[in-house]
Formats: sequence, structure tokens, C-alpha cells
Amino acid sequence: MRNLLMKVSYDGTNYNGFQTQPGGNTVQDLLEDAIELLSGEKLKITASGRTDAGVHARGQVFNFYTASKIPVERWCIALNSRLSEDIVVTDAVEVPLEFHSRREAKQKTYRYTINANQFPDLFNRRYQFHHHGRLDITAMEEGLRHLIGTHDFTTFASRKSTKPSHVRTIYDAWIETDTSMCRPGTRDQGIIHTYVTGSGFLQHMVRIIMGTLMEVGEGKRTPESISVILEAKNRATAGPTAMSTGLMLWDVEYDITSFVKPDFA
Amino acid sequence: MRNLLMKVSYDGTNYNGFQTQPGGNTVQDLLEDAIELLSGEKLKITASGRTDAGVHARGQVFNFYTASKIPVERWCIALNSRLSEDIVVTDAVEVPLEFHSRREAKQKTYRYTINANQFPDLFNRRYQFHHHGRLDITAMEEGLRHLIGTHDFTTFASRKSTKPSHVRTIYDAWIETDTSMCRPGTRDQGIIHTYVTGSGFLQHMVRIIMGTLMEVGEGKRTPESISVILEAKNRATAGPTAMSTGLMLWDVEYDITSFVKPDFA
Repeated sequence: MRNLLMKVSYDGTNYNGFQTQPGGNTVQDLLEDAIELLSGEKLKITASGRTDAGVHARGQVFNFYTASKIPVERWCIALNSRLSEDIVVTDAVEVPLEFHSRREAKQKTYRYTINANQFPDLFNRRYQFHHHGRLDITAMEEGLRHLIGTHDFTTFASRKSTKPSHVRTIYDAWIETDTSMCRPGTRDQGIIHTYVTGSGFLQHMVRIIMGTLMEVGEGKRTPESISVILEAKNRATAGPTAMSTGLMLWDVEYDITSFVKPDFA
Repeated sequence: MRNLLMKVSYDGTNYNGFQTQPGGNTVQDLLEDAIELLSGEKLKITASGRTDAGVHARGQVFNFYTASKIPVERWCIALNSRLSEDIVVTDAVEVPLEFHSRREAKQKTYRYTINANQFPDLFNRRYQFHHHGRLDITAMEEGLRHLIGTHDFTTFASRKSTKPSHVRTIYDAWIETDTSMCRPGTRDQGIIHTYVTGSGFLQHMVRIIMGTLMEVGEGKRTPESISVILEAKNRATAGPTAMSTGLMLWDVEYDITSFVKPDFA
């Protein structure tokens, strides 16, 4: 038996999220179907975590146990030829049997993309939330800084969260603005990418952070109010849950650099 | 009566090309339907030229005559709300009645995008041709330079072309390679964007140029052979017609800077 660890990118637009659920049509289902087609094994994969319906991933990570003799370097191409073109397995390595892609994840980074130009960016429309009207990006950056550190994130968690603890650590959070598509003489503000890196994330956490941060950008809240509502530990004090379309699981990091090929971790 | 000039972007994936044809489902049809919904006028638009099925446009240009009193600055938003999300009108200006978007086009630029990385770029898969195997980009750049100037482009035109003359001028042609997505330790070569600017283009011209240029990149032809086959004026001497998916009408330029808003031309 071998334990294989893989990295996968997907366009979440057409799926009911990553994790298997009664309605079917999930990324996990398609990955397990492709593995079965390839190795004949009906197995379950373990991912670093779930992503919601419509959320994308640049670097989701999963592992599974296989008795197949297929060399590890053959798996990516073999799986991709059995997958829909909106799911691409980009890396595969063998890891020790005890390795678990959720429990050993050290940190995750999500990216949320807002298009703050007048018009939708046609060619990236599935991966952006199009915001109408001016945003104060400096105020958003300031608001974001109040989230860094170890906090109880109940304010920024779905009311449906069943996790025993809502304490998480945000290691870093920053905004990168791409103004290359801005048209001169317009009020175009560019494509605003917000990155949040943390130990783990609660259900809807990044989307509620972004819904609240956009209210900061719109001048409906002050940057300092982020600290106040964080203290309140009350979902009702935060803004709306931003649309899933702008969200992408950017990267998952592990302490496994010693036994994987250099470009994986 | 007013003559309105507009710029439109579209994702050509789901359409039978730009120009109205018996099978329907063209970008032109959808634009004319949206105009009719807005102004009540059943009219025909004139574009800078056609694009084939599956070809995209960043900056296609068209004009039409309207009796509508709707102010020109209202047209973009009004049309976009009546169009599918894969067609976006980005600019609208009033031009003199004699202005004709095809006859007065001074030059056009097309961009063809090759993904020369090991894996498809998931999030841009509709806008790239994924090339397997190594390409000699320097040789492709050298080959491209042989096309610059005024030539009879019969070699690079569809055999179905009915144009009385195949003489066209290529003003400039260059390659820009984006290696930001390349993964260290792999044979990834990056995203190769080829731009070709000319007075006008024959049917399939850019796609035949690219199919031939990829053979140069693969070492199947020398860069100098481009000159030789150009002289031959024979379609059979060129390479295959590259897939439409990588092609985008990048820009159409006019001598109209004096009477349009600065960001249009």
C-alpha cells in the first residue's frame, strides 16, 4: 500500500463544492471516479478541507491509499485524461503512510478577487466578483490588518458552523491591486486581489470577511470597526457573505519539503 | 439619424463567429437583438471585420445608424444589461455619418496564445492552445520577422478566400512570453503570446501563420523557410491552420482621435 499526495486545480463554477454530498456532482466524486477508472480501486480521498459550491482552487491538496503499481510520476497525466477539463491534477508524490492532508496542513491561503472596474472582465468573469462603485482600498487594507493574529472568529463564521472552537490564527492578510486593465479617463480601480493566510478557516469565513471588508471600502464601516465586531463574537455584527465566485483556495502548505520534489510544497 | 461607434469584447467559445450567417447564434445577431430590445429598431451593424467560430475579441469595433434619442453615454450599460455575460460593450461614441468601421480601419492587431507548459492553464483554458513538447521560441521570433512588410499572403490564406488581392501589409509582429505560471524543476516554457499587427487579414491568415510558426518552433521548418513559402504563393507549402481557441482580435485602430473620447482609439 502506498500513500499518494496530490495537488489539484479546479474551476468550481459547475460543481456542488469539493466534498462528496448527497446531491453528487462534486470535485471529490470526479477525482474518485477518475482514480477508479485508472486503477480499478473504489476508494475515498482525504482533502486538506472542503470548498463551497462555486469556489475555485489553484492548489487544493488530497491524499489516498492505493495498491496500484502505477509509478507516481504517471498519475497526473493518467488522471487528467480521465477528468473533465475544469479539473487538473498538477502534482503527485508518495508520502509516508501516516501522512494526512487535513491534519498536517500547516497553513492555507485563500484569495478573493474583486473587479472594481466599470465593466466585467469578460475573460475572468467566473473568477471575480464585480463590484459597482468606488472602494477605499486603503481603508480595506487597514481593516484587514485587524484580523491578523489569533482570535475567536465566531463573528466571521457561518451560524451553521459546528466546530467546537472558533479560534483560528491569521498569519498574514494583504491586498494586491492590478491596474493593468484600467482604462484611462474612467473611474476604473482595477482588479483587487485579497489574500488571507491562516492556520485554518471556518465555514464561510473568508467570504464573510470579504463581505464586511467591502462595506469598509464603501465607507459604511470604519476599518477600526473590524476589531470591535471581532470582539463581539456575533455573526450579526459582520457584513454579508460575499459571493463564492470571487473565492479561490490559493495554496495549502505542509512541513514536507524533505521528502517531496522541490516544486510541490 | 446618428452614427454610433462601439467597441465590444466577447468570448467566442459559444458562438458561430461574429458575422450573421444562416445557422444563427452569432455575436452580431446578439448585438442586433440587444439594440432592438433597447431602441426598438431592427437594424444591421457594420463591424471592422468578421471573426471565425470560437475566436475571441478584446476590441472588436462596429457602427450603426440610429434614430434613438438615448444619450451615447447610456448605451454601454443599457446594451450590456440586455446581452449574455460573454459579450460586453465597453465603449460608445458618436461619429460623423460617413464613418464606416471596416473601410476606415487603419490597422488591426490579433493575438494568438500558446500554453507551452506541461499542464493546461485551467482558468484560461478557453483562450489558449495547449502545445505539448518543447518550442524554440527564438526560432519562432525569427520566423515571424520574415512576415513583416508588404507581401502577397496567398500561402497564408484559406483556399476558400475570394478576395481579389491577397496583398497585405504586416506592420509589426512580436512574441511576449509570460513565465509567471512556470513551475520550477519542470520543462514548463510559459504562456507564449504572439501579436501580429497589419493593414488587414485574409481568412484564416493568423491561424495558418501560427500553425506554420509552431512547426518552426518544433524544428520541423527553419525560420528562413517562412520567406521561401511566402514567395511560393501556395497554401500547400504552409503548415496547418491552428485551432481557433487561441486567437483573439486584440485591437482595431482608426484615425479618429480628434473626435472621440481619449480612451477609445
